[in-house]
Order: sequence, then structure tokens, then C-alpha cells
Amino acid sequence: MTTISLDKLKELVELQRPGYTLDQQFYTDPDIFEIDLNTFFLNHWIFIGHISRIPNIGDYFLFETGNESVIVIRGTNNQIYAHHNVCRHRGSRICVENNGNKKVLVCPYHAWSYNIDGSIKSARLMPENFNKDEWGLHKCNLRVYEGLIFINFSDHPDDFNEFIKPTSLFIELHDLSNAKIAHREVYPTYGNWKLTLDNFHECYHCQPSHPEYCQVHDAEYILSFGGGSQSSGVESKSFNKRLEDWNNKVQSLGHLTGVYYEKEFSQYSRSAERTPLSGGRLSETKDGKPAAPLMGKFKERDGGYTSVGPSPFNSLLMCNDFATLFTFIPKGPIETDVELTWLVHKDAVEGKDYDLQNMVWMWDKTTIADKKIIEDNQKGVLSKKYKPGPLSKMEKSLDSFKTWYLRRLLLSI
Amino acid sequence: MTTISLDKLKELVELQRPGYTLDQQFYTDPDIFEIDLNTFFLNHWIFIGHISRIPNIGDYFLFETGNESVIVIRGTNNQIYAHHNVCRHRGSRICVENNGNKKVLVCPYHAWSYNIDGSIKSARLMPENFNKDEWGLHKCNLRVYEGLIFINFSDHPDDFNEFIKPTSLFIELHDLSNAKIAHREVYPTYGNWKLTLDNFHECYHCQPSHPEYCQVHDAEYILSFGGGSQSSGVESKSFNKRLEDWNNKVQSLGHLTGVYYEKEFSQYSRSAERTPLSGGRLSETKDGKPAAPLMGKFKERDGGYTSVGPSPFNSLLMCNDFATLFTFIPKGPIETDVELTWLVHKDAVEGKDYDLQNMVWMWDKTTIADKKIIEDNQKGVLSKKYKPGPLSKMEKSLDSFKTWYLRRLLLSI
Amino acid sequence: MTTISLDKLKELVELQRPGYTLDQQFYTDPDIFEIDLNTFFLNHWIFIGHISRIPNIGDYFLFETGNESVIVIRGTNNQIYAHHNVCRHRGSRICVENNGNKKVLVCPYHAWSYNIDGSIKSARLMPENFNKDEWGLHKCNLRVYEGLIFINFSDHPDDFNEFIKPTSLFIELHDLSNAKIAHREVYPTYGNWKLTLDNFHECYHCQPSHPEYCQVHDAEYILSFGGGSQSSGVESKSFNKRLEDWNNKVQSLGHLTGVYYEKEFSQYSRSAERTPLSGGRLSETKDGKPAAPLMGKFKERDGGYTSVGPSPFNSLLMCNDFATLFTFIPKGPIETDVELTWLVHKDAVEGKDYDLQNMVWMWDKTTIADKKIIEDNQKGVLSKKYKPGPLSKMEKSLDSFKTWYLRRLLLSI
Repeated sequence: MTTISLDKLKELVELQRPGYTLDQQFYTDPDIFEIDLNTFFLNHWIFIGHISRIPNIGDYFLFETGNESVIVIRGTNNQIYAHHNVCRHRGSRICVENNGNKKVLVCPYHAWSYNIDGSIKSARLMPENFNKDEWGLHKCNLRVYEGLIFINFSDHPDDFNEFIKPTSLFIELHDLSNAKIAHREVYPTYGNWKLTLDNFHECYHCQPSHPEYCQVHDAEYILSFGGGSQSSGVESKSFNKRLEDWNNKVQSLGHLTGVYYEKEFSQYSRSAERTPLSGGRLSETKDGKPAAPLMGKFKERDGGYTSVGPSPFNSLLMCNDFATLFTFIPKGPIETDVELTWLVHKDAVEGKDYDLQNMVWMWDKTTIADKKIIEDNQKGVLSKKYKPGPLSKMEKSLDSFKTWYLRRLLLSI
Repeated sequence: MTTISLDKLKELVELQRPGYTLDQQFYTDPDIFEIDLNTFFLNHWIFIGHISRIPNIGDYFLFETGNESVIVIRGTNNQIYAHHNVCRHRGSRICVENNGNKKVLVCPYHAWSYNIDGSIKSARLMPENFNKDEWGLHKCNLRVYEGLIFINFSDHPDDFNEFIKPTSLFIELHDLSNAKIAHREVYPTYGNWKLTLDNFHECYHCQPSHPEYCQVHDAEYILSFGGGSQSSGVESKSFNKRLEDWNNKVQSLGHLTGVYYEKEFSQYSRSAERTPLSGGRLSETKDGKPAAPLMGKFKERDGGYTSVGPSPFNSLLMCNDFATLFTFIPKGPIETDVELTWLVHKDAVEGKDYDLQNMVWMWDKTTIADKKIIEDNQKGVLSKKYKPGPLSKMEKSLDSFKTWYLRRLLLSI
Repeated sequence: MTTISLDKLKELVELQRPGYTLDQQFYTDPDIFEIDLNTFFLNHWIFIGHISRIPNIGDYFLFETGNESVIVIRGTNNQIYAHHNVCRHRGSRICVENNGNKKVLVCPYHAWSYNIDGSIKSARLMPENFNKDEWGLHKCNLRVYEGLIFINFSDHPDDFNEFIKPTSLFIELHDLSNAKIAHREVYPTYGNWKLTLDNFHECYHCQPSHPEYCQVHDAEYILSFGGGSQSSGVESKSFNKRLEDWNNKVQSLGHLTGVYYEKEFSQYSRSAERTPLSGGRLSETKDGKPAAPLMGKFKERDGGYTSVGPSPFNSLLMCNDFATLFTFIPKGPIETDVELTWLVHKDAVEGKDYDLQNMVWMWDKTTIADKKIIEDNQKGVLSKKYKPGPLSKMEKSLDSFKTWYLRRLLLSI
């Protein structure tokens, strides 16, 4: 299907310079996109939705990317299944609505029917040698963890426990299995997935592009953590002091603190950290006041901000009373969907316990602005005159991601 | 133009299994589509319109598919011509409206003019060595048969008489040369041409998808003929009896009966049959009552249904008083136009002799539903998880078509 | 990027016949388009706008074609610069509005800022070894000549003076540096750039397609100059006489007369001529009456028409009181923008000194009609049945252009 030779790609990978952006092809070429898709997105555990999207038996939603469509459905005993939305008979889509409730999955074409667990229920007029057991729906790997639904398209998926281990304490602190979806929004972005992720790997652009973000997160925090968790490319002594004080205070409450990043190369690219919100804020809101009832294992509000990247395709940004979850879905060589899910405590009532607009304000505004700057970045990168440019001290995390991407790609070819 | 090697295609053809659908590439690959187009659609006699579309001298319509456009025009002596709509000077389209009346074909660009027979009439200011006789319009093979206009894009078209022979008695019974168009409709369908034809090769989907069709054609008929003319994959003893009784009755009237299908492989894929309509119906309408004045060579209404497939790209479905003619036009790898033409007796008057809505009701509803299910089928087939699936007993005709397609394709490469 | 082999292209070039249009691929193939773009459009001096579009310091406009975007901006000392609109940091577009005023060019992404001359002004938080001097904006070759802004994308641009020399007297006669833009309009045309230029290289189509043009320019002029400057494929004795008389009269006024065309093959394809307008007209208007105040070096109105083609991508059509400037911008294999700029004397006031509708009437109507006939030409040329056709005596200039194109292409491969 792809016409680029792997030798050519290898050579190209080896030409990339540390400290600089990648060559144009990596952000534009359809063949490299196809290889990327199989090496990364379709080979990773991806969080694609919260269990509260499908509370009842038979509730389902579709997860769709490119030509792929997966039915995520709740079965009896509350088990959740993921099936490829492709009838085993002639290949028709089985569910054609984006979500709904089905007790039996009946293909609308010839009425082959499947049980919620994917096994075949009935198929009319098949030849005598037809063995129903062989024709259940193709399963997609699925794991529900802390109320988060992860899927993995690979035939040989990484071990989920190994994958999640280093970030698990950070995630579990927020007890997302007792949360519910407050809002969900998709931001279709005309940029290559790596350009899109690059944007989320650095806060060097926050000051020029994100007044709302900068209102909530102050300059010292951005200096210190705007280049990524693993190192502050730029040091802020004032933020270091603030972090140290906060860590001491919070540890005395028994709350988790700390930073995780990958010390050496592996198939994973994970990070996690807890930091204090700026200016004594208690929540990631305009005025810093609480946005919703306390969630998670916190004894009291500690004004902290938990940022977890279990893979390049997800970010979980969590304060004491709500969580903003990002999923980055590559759709084409220069098209990526950015999907945001906001979670609150499962018992919180909108309008009474929380004001939705207040809660989504910062990340909604910020993601709309990101869409625009990523798209303008992509346009420039398509020019014959684009050449790799030098990265700033606040783009260390982006540089690490790029290095990881290239090494991981080399391993696969 | 195509990048798939013919060896690769040969190998792929040989990997296909009888009794199963084809591999994904056959329904999606642009190169295979290009080869298909040249091997099949552009190499077959195709019915593209009825003579009553162009009753007067100079009347024309365009037949368009992909980048091709053909002018079908009535000349003096009522002869009908088909010319490629490409000026021999600089290549401009000559007719830019879909239909109209022209006594001379004048290219709107530089005013080269052609007679209706395609010969050049005038070209200004050409060099002295310009020989008008060499620059007439490129002709497209054309044959008018029983009022049906067939064209063939091939440079070496099959002999028309040999092509039409086995189905001719079935067609001639309905005397379509004394018919007129009651209605015409195009249903653009986002599916590969073979997926589109597959849908019309089986009635396994009729029960789940076509309530209107099933209201007119009962379950026993569908069981018996839903898998195609040449064999009923599923036998219905009750329908066999009904058919036998009807054959006897109708033969006594001197009307044609019987079934034709290809007994052995050839370049053709043709079929024809006559069966009784269900429940004593006299016409293919909701209530089974006559829809229009009697057509054809019938002495009286015999309640029969004549189904003729002169090629994979046409179906002629005819009852005693009207005919529904299908043309399947491949437009792109996953785009096919389905064009329907309804014919009635030439003297029948709409509103007085027939109610158009009553007549088009079943096939209009059914074709709209087919468009939807073909498109959902195509979407699933595009998934990486699509794999060939097993065919039912009622998809025998589809399996035969598939086998014929593969053998015919092998011969051409 | 392209998949056509250069040997294959060479072979194809050599198969083309003089006196006939080109083979289909030259008007449709994406690979040939890519080669064309680099060999011709991106390797020529192109007029892209008049200085009056950016009268003040900091005024800019974008020139965009395909994936390329160039910022044309007026600096201090009234110098005009052209910079590629690609930030040297991560490649973002810098200017995202089509025109405006900027005293500093600040990238909206990370706020790298550039001076109007393209040198870097500031870049925050860069590593210690970052040398600002190396990271100014990529310059595009630019030359302002007679108020006309020319750019050249090549890394080794032709010498501008050599390029402009043979047509310079014709251009300078009209003193365009003392003009201003009266109107600007883009006509997006779905045709290959060569089909689009072919249309502007012959007036064989004027009679059937352009009633407005033929109202202003009479049949004798078209016969004589409709095939191009360098030769009248068709001779008009009556026009020859008229031209001779007019030349004598005008020379006595001290005004320029004459014809320039390329006598032998070079990298250039240039032409220029002065002719009398038809019927004693003083301007290229419906009634032939003056349209605006006299421009240029004329002592009095001489009723002349100056037509200059400095390259295939520009035509400057100038009468005594206004000028119509054409820029042909290849956008894709079958997409070309035709941009028209009308100039008048810089002091002329719309509504008082000139009626805009009267002035733009002929070329606006004619270009709209050209768009239509080029698009119908392209449709026909896409057909499998298109074959090169014979050119008329009035298409000599088109034939010369075609010959030049093929020779120039051969040189580059």
C-alpha cells in the first residue's frame, strides 16, 4: 500500500537532528502516516471513553478513526466489550448510529445477529458446513481501568498492567471510577498527529496564544513545567520553592506528590506529575474557586494539579474537583481529532453542584486556539521553504517525544 | 497509470475462495477499479436509454461516466448516433447541456461544426493540408434493439446479435419499441460497482431491508428465486408447484415461459426468466391491480414477471403493463450510479391511463434502501478488520457472478 | 515525489507533433504538473502585484499558490521585501490575513518576531548557541520595476535586466510607476495552466466566444494579430495598411511603435507589440471613448493598444488611459487562477475621472467566458478519446508556445 521504501525511511530517520523539528515528510507524507498509524496509534493502549457513557446493559457508542469503527457496549454482568463494527458475513457496518442501546446486535443488511459478547446468535440459510462458533465478531482488545475504557487495536498488545503501572498512583488518586461525564467535545484539527502532539508537549506558545491558560497558570509554573515533566528546560527558582513547600504540606495530608518520566528508552512514552495550582487556586477555573464537589481520595482540597500522559495519545489533567481527559485521534496525514471529556464526581448535579461553563471554560478556549495555531503551523510546514528549525529551552519535552518517536519507528522497520 | 503489477493481481485472483466474498482490494483499490472499468464496463454492450428520450430529429442526451461523455443523437431518417463528446480540434466538450436539440453540432470553443452523423461540416482557417474527412467525431459503437439504445466503448466490441440472442425472446415479448419513458431517476451510490451488483444479485437481504418488495413478492418466490435464476439455492416446493401450474396456463395462451442462464463460462454473464407474480397479482404494484394499459405481445394479462439480465450492468424487470430498466454505471472505486427507467405503452397517458406514483413506488423505495445498505456495506469493507465472509444458500447467484468476474479478469491480464 | 521516470517523459516529449495539441498527460498528469511547476512557474520572474497595493510602511499582502505563501511588505525607505511566510522556528504561517499592516512580523505561535527586512528581532528562551543571524526569514527574489512587483522563486533566478530588456520600452511608455490599482479580481479556472495559457495565445475562439471583445476589436485586427505577435498566421491586407498608416502617424508624435518576438529559442518566451485600436477608438471600452485621464509618456491620445507578454505567466494589455494586467497562477494539475489588475493614473478619482464598470467591462466579461470554455476544454481533454488535434492558422502563437514549452522542458530533465 505504501510506496516509500523502508531503506529510504531508515535513512531519513537517521538524518534528523536533535534539537530541531523534523523534516517535512514526517508531517505530510501519506505513506509515513500509514506506517505511523500501524506503529503507534493502532499499537497502543488508548483511553477512548468513560464507563458513564454507557451506564445500562446494551448501551453502546462507536469509536471511529479513519476507516475503523469499534462498537463499545455494556453487556450483562456489567462487562464492557469492544467489537469491530464489521459483519462477518459480507462486511457491512452493524451499528450505523453513533450511540444507542441494543440487546442484540443485528446487522441491518442480512439480519445476521450477534449477542452482546460478540458471539453469533443467528444466521439464516447458511450451508450445512457453516460453524457459528467461527464467525463471532472480531474483538478489539479492551481494558476498563478506574472507569476509563482503554482499547488496543494490536494483535499483540502490550501488557496493560505493565503499561499503566508507573502512572497508576497518580490516576487512582482521583478515583475516576466514581466519576461521570459532565461534557464531551471533539475539535477536528487539520494538522498531522505529530504536529498536534508537539503543540501539547510545550507551553512555549502559551504566553502568545493562550490568555485564558495564562490567567490560571502563572508564568513561574509555565517556566518550570512548560517544557514537560521530566525536566524544566528553564529553571524557576521561585517555582521550585513553591513546589517544595507545597509538597511538604500535601505529604503531611497523606496525599501523593512527585514526578514520573521515562528514564530510559522503551516502547512507552509516559509521564505524570503533581504540582500546585497558581495563586492559591483550588481548581482550574477563572477565579480559582472550587468548581464542583471534591473527588477522589483527597482528605481535603490541596490545590494540586495532576497531569498524566499514559501514552502520547492521552493526557489526563486533574484538579481536586474535576478532570479533563484528552484523546488525540489521527484521522489522516494532516487531520487529527482532539477529543475532550470532562469528568466530575458521579453524584454531582449540574446547575446545583457545578456550573458547566465555568468548568470547561479554560480548556475549551485553549483547545479552540490550539486548533488554529496547529493548522497555521501545518500550512507553513507544507511549503517547499519549510526546513527544520531550532527548538527553545521550553521545548525539551517535544524534543524528547521526537527522539522517542524516531527510535520507536526505527525499531519497527 | 495503474501501479499494481499484473502478476500480483493474478496471484490475488487465485487466492479468492469459492463461497466467500472477495478480498478487500477488489472493492476498494483504485488500480483494480481502472482495470475493471476497461475489462468490464467499457468492454460490454450497455443499455443506456430508450429511444423515446430523443423522439425528434436533432434531439440528444449525454451519457456520462467518469471522464467519458457520449452524445446520443437522432439523425435524419431517424437513425441514432453515438459520438464521443470531444472536439477533434482541441478536445473541448461540444455539448455542455445534458440534453437538448441540435441540427448541427457546433463546438462552443472555436466553432468547428459537425453534422449529426459526426462528419465535419466546417472548420475555419485550417492549413491547406487539412483533410476534413479525417476529423469527424470519434464514434461510439451503438445498436438500437427493441427501442433500447445499447452502446459499447470497446474498439473490438462483441457481436451484438450473439450477445443478445439467448435473452431476445424474453425481451421481445414486451415490445419495448412501442413503449415510452414514464419516469427516469438516478440513485448515486457510494459503493464499488461489484458491491452494488452483489446487492442486486441476491434477495437474502430483502426480508430485513425491503418491506415494500416483500409486500409484492412473497416469501416462497424469494426462497426460490432470491438466489438467482440459474438455481434456487434454496428450494421451495410450494413455489415449484405454483410455477409449474402457471407455466401450463400461460403456455396455453401461447405466451413465453422458462429460464435461461449461462451453462458454461463465456465472456457473457446473462440470465432471463419468467415467473408468476405473487398472490395472483397482475402487476408489480402495492395492490397487484393493473398499473397501466397492456404492453407487448400478450394476448391477455398473464400475471407474469419477466426478469432479464443481458449483462451485469443491466436488469430489465417487466410485468404485463410496465417495465423497470436498471443501468449500473461505475463512477469511481467506491461510487456507482444506479439509473432506473420506467417504461409504459407509448400511447398510455399519465393521470388517465396510469398513476406514476403507483408504478414507481416499489422500485423507488427499494432502490433508496439499497443505496443505504450498499453504502454501509462499503464502509465496513474499508476496515482493516474486514475479511471475506461465507455466503448463504440464497447468495448462489452472487457467488456465480464473483466466479465469472474472476475468470473473466484472469483472461484479460 | 513524482513517479514518472524522466526517460519516459523525454520519450513522451519527443513524440509530440508540431501543428497539433499535446498528448493528454501534459494537461492532466500530477507528476508532469509538479515538474512543470518547478521548471516554469517557480523558475520565472512573475508580476504579482502593483506597488499601490501597499502604499504605507508596513503594508503587506500575501501571494499564495499551492502550498507556497509569500509576504510582500513595504519597509522603511519605501523598500519592498518578499519573505516566505514560514516561521524559521517550527514552520508556522506568520501572517494569516491576506493583507494588512505590520511594523514587526510576529509569529502568532511562539512570538518569534522579525523586522520588516526579514531579520530576526527576538526569540525567547533559545539555547546559548543560537545565532539570530542565521534564522532570518527565507527571502524570495523580488524586483520592483515601473511600479510592478516581480518575484522569482528560483534559487538561481535569471538576471532581471536581461529578462525585461526587450519589452522594457513598451512597458515604460505607460509609466506604470505613476499608476494605481482601480480594481483587482481573481477568476479561479478548473483547467491545467497550459490549457489556460493556450486559450490566451489565440483569438481563433474570439468570434464564437467573445461578443464583447469582438465589439471592441474588429475582425481585421483579429485576423492579423489573433494568432500572436510574431506572425499573423493569417494575413489581413486591410489591417496591414491600417497599421502602416497608424505607425507613421504615431511615430511623428514621437510615440513608440513596433513588434517584438523571440527570433530564436532561449529560456524566455516574451512578446510585445503596439497596434491601433479598431474603428478609431481611443480606449478599450464599449464605445471607444476615453475611459480615464491620459497615462504614461504620451503627448496626446494616439488610439494605440500595447500588448506585452514578459513571460507566459503575465500579459500587460495597455491603452492610453488604463492598463489590464494578467497573472496566471498554476494551482494544481487542473486548476489555475487568472488574476486581473486594472491600473489607472494615480491621480484619477473613481466616479469623477473614470467609471470603473466601463473600464473593466470587456476583460471581465471576456475572462468569465474564458473560464467556461477552458473548463469545457479540460473536461474533454480528460476523456480516453481525446487525441491531439490539428491547429488552425490562427493558432500559430499557441503552437510556438507549445514548441518552446517542450524544448524548455527537455533542457531541464
